[in-house]
Amino acid sequence: MGQTTIKDVARRAGFSFQTVSLVLNHPEKVAGTTRATIEAAMRDLDFVPSLAARALRKKPSRSIACVSCLEPSPTDLQACASLSPCSDALPCAEPVSSSAEGAPGAETPDAPDPMPETDLGLVLQAFAQVTDQHGYTLIHRRCRSDDPDGRARIANLVSEARVDGLVIFAERRDDPLIALLKAKHVPFVVFGLDVPGAHCAARADRDAVHEAVAFLARTGSRAVGFLGGTRAADRFRGYRDALAEAGLPLRADLVVACDWTSAGGYRAALALLDRPSRPDAIVAANDRVAFGVLKALHDRGVRVPGEIRVVGFDDVAQSAYAIPSLTSIAVPTLDMVRFAFTTLVAVIEGTRPPDDLARKLFSTRLVLRESTAAQVPP
Amino acid sequence: MGQTTIKDVARRAGFSFQTVSLVLNHPEKVAGTTRATIEAAMRDLDFVPSLAARALRKKPSRSIACVSCLEPSPTDLQACASLSPCSDALPCAEPVSSSAEGAPGAETPDAPDPMPETDLGLVLQAFAQVTDQHGYTLIHRRCRSDDPDGRARIANLVSEARVDGLVIFAERRDDPLIALLKAKHVPFVVFGLDVPGAHCAARADRDAVHEAVAFLARTGSRAVGFLGGTRAADRFRGYRDALAEAGLPLRADLVVACDWTSAGGYRAALALLDRPSRPDAIVAANDRVAFGVLKALHDRGVRVPGEIRVVGFDDVAQSAYAIPSLTSIAVPTLDMVRFAFTTLVAVIEGTRPPDDLARKLFSTRLVLRESTAAQVPP
Repeated sequence: MGQTTIKDVARRAGFSFQTVSLVLNHPEKVAGTTRATIEAAMRDLDFVPSLAARALRKKPSRSIACVSCLEPSPTDLQACASLSPCSDALPCAEPVSSSAEGAPGAETPDAPDPMPETDLGLVLQAFAQVTDQHGYTLIHRRCRSDDPDGRARIANLVSEARVDGLVIFAERRDDPLIALLKAKHVPFVVFGLDVPGAHCAARADRDAVHEAVAFLARTGSRAVGFLGGTRAADRFRGYRDALAEAGLPLRADLVVACDWTSAGGYRAALALLDRPSRPDAIVAANDRVAFGVLKALHDRGVRVPGEIRVVGFDDVAQSAYAIPSLTSIAVPTLDMVRFAFTTLVAVIEGTRPPDDLARKLFSTRLVLRESTAAQVPP
Repeated sequence: MGQTTIKDVARRAGFSFQTVSLVLNHPEKVAGTTRATIEAAMRDLDFVPSLAARALRKKPSRSIACVSCLEPSPTDLQACASLSPCSDALPCAEPVSSSAEGAPGAETPDAPDPMPETDLGLVLQAFAQVTDQHGYTLIHRRCRSDDPDGRARIANLVSEARVDGLVIFAERRDDPLIALLKAKHVPFVVFGLDVPGAHCAARADRDAVHEAVAFLARTGSRAVGFLGGTRAADRFRGYRDALAEAGLPLRADLVVACDWTSAGGYRAALALLDRPSRPDAIVAANDRVAFGVLKALHDRGVRVPGEIRVVGFDDVAQSAYAIPSLTSIAVPTLDMVRFAFTTLVAVIEGTRPPDDLARKLFSTRLVLRESTAAQVPP
C-alpha cells in the first residue's frame, strides 16, 4: 500500500494532484463534495500518506509542541446535562454560579485572580524534563476550541517545520483540533484522554473514581456526593457505576456541577450542605476542588471524616498536608509523559507505522489518608 | 558610537575580524589574553554590537525561550550561612534533613513523588498566554548550573536562530548562565530576581517580607520565626530589617533552613516547636511551605492564630482555602510577565538600545486572612 502515490489518487478521483495535496494539508479549504470524492479514492486505493517520506523532505526540527486545548469559559458552569454521555444520566442539581461568594476569610478585598489555577504546569515541566533529556526542544501553545484560525496555525506547525509533532491536552474527545490533525495526518499523541483512533497516553479516570466510590461504599458511606462539571464525564461514569454495583441510588441532589477550582468546590459544598438530605461522603473532581470542600465543611462546623468523608483526585503534593490530610487518586504523570514522548518520536521518525496506534490506559492509585478514615459516631 | 564596526575593533586590537566575531559569539573559545585585548579595544572605541543589524542578517524566529535555571539539589538543605549576604548575618539553626519524616497521615505507603512541586508552571502558562496573544512561540528549556554544555546550548539558541531572545528564571544573581549571556550579547530578560546590569522584571522580595514582619510586630508578635533556605536571601533581609526596626532581636534559634515544599515546611515547623522557646509567629518562604507549617501546628495541637500566627508568600489560589485561611503575599505575576515580554521584544527588534536597561521592581501586596488575626489569650 505504500506504493500508491498522491498522483494515483488524483487520477482515480478526477482532480489535480494539487487538489489532493490540499485535502491532505488544508482540508478546510476544499469544498465538501470534492473532499469526499478524494477521500473515497484514498480509501479505495488504501492510500496512506508517508510520514517518513514527508519527514525526509524537510529537516527535522527536533522540537515538539505541547498544545493546551481551552474551552470558551465558563464551560464548567453550564448545566451538566451533558455530564454523562449515557442515556441513563440524571439531570443533576443546578450548577453553582461563580459569582456567588468570594474567597472566605479575606480581611482585605481580593483583586480578581489573573492566574490560571491548574496543575497543567506540572505536566509541562515533566515534558520539559523528558524532552531535554532527549535533546528535543519543547514548545508550548494554546488553542481555543472556538478559534478556527488558531487551530489552523497549530495544525500548520508541522508542515512549516517548526515542530516535528504535537502532544494534545484536550478536555473533550470531540475537540475540533483532534479532527483537524487527523485529517491533515499530523503526528500527534493525546495526553490524558482516551480518544478513539489516536495515539493516547490516557488516564483511567472512570476506573479511578469507581475505585474510590467502591471503597467509600464498602466502608460505610451510603450517600456519596459528586462535585464535577462537564469536563468530568469519565469520572462521573465511575461514580455512577460504583453506586449501582453497591446497590446505592444515584441521587440527583448529590451531584453538583462546579468549576475545577477551590472556589468552585467551596461554593458547591455549601450548596450540598443546604439541601434537605446531606451526603455522608463527597468525591471531588480534583484536589483543588476538594480543598475548597474541606474549607466549606470546616467553616460550617461539619467534622471530616466524622460526618462527611472527602476524596480528591490527582494527589498533588499538598494533599498530604490538608487538614485533615486528603485521600486522593495518584496519577503516574511521569510515566504517561514518557510514553507520550516515546510514541510521538516513533511516529515522527517513521519507526511506528501511522495505522499502528499506540494506546495505553494508565492506572491510578487510591491513596488513603485522614479524610476518609472509617466513620465514627459523634 | 553606532559607527564603529567589528573591523575597526579588529584593526585596533591587532587581530582578525573573525577573532573579534568569535569573542562576540563564542567568547569561551577565545584565549583569555586575546579576549581581554579585544574587549579593551571594544571599550576604547565604544563599540556596541548592533542587535538590530544582527537581527536583520537572520530571519527572526518569532520565538522566545523561557529558561529555568536549576540548582544541583539539594541546595536548600545546605547550611544557610549564605542566607544573608551581609556581614551581620547570624548563623541560623541547623537545616532540617529531608530524610526526617514522610508525609503525615498516609495510611498506605506513598511512592516517591516524581513530580516537581513548584509554581513555575503558572508563570509559564502566563508566558504562553502573552506570547500567544502576540503571535510568538514559547519554548521552554532547563539549565542546570553545574552543566556547562547545557549552558552553551542555551546561549546558542539565539545564534542558531531557534529563538530571538530568552527569559531567565534564575534563583541566584551569580548564576553562570547570566554571565555567559551577557558576554555573548544574547538578548535576555531576568524574571523574578533583580540582577545588576541586566533587563529585569523583579519581585520586591525584601520589601514584601519586611511588610509582613512589620505587620506582625505592630500587632503583637514578639518572637517571629523564619523558614527559608539559601534561595530566600532577599526575603531573609526583609525579615532581619523589619525585626531591627521593631526593636526585636534576630534569634538564630527561630531561623530554620528548609526546602521550599510542604514537606520541608512540616519538618521545619516541628523542629521549631521542639526548641526551648517557641515562636509566636512564623513567616514561611512561600505558601507551600506555609501549608506544611499549618499541618504541623495542627498535628501538635497548636492553635493558629491563637498561639502562633502564620504568613506565606505567593498567595496561590489555595491560600484562601487553607485551614485557617492563610495570610500571604500576592505577586503581580501577569504584570511581570507582560513587562518581561515587552522588554524582550523591544531589545530583539532593536527599538531599545542594548545599554538602556529596562529594570522594574514589582511591588507585592500583603493579603490578610485568618492565620494572622490579632492574637487572643487562650
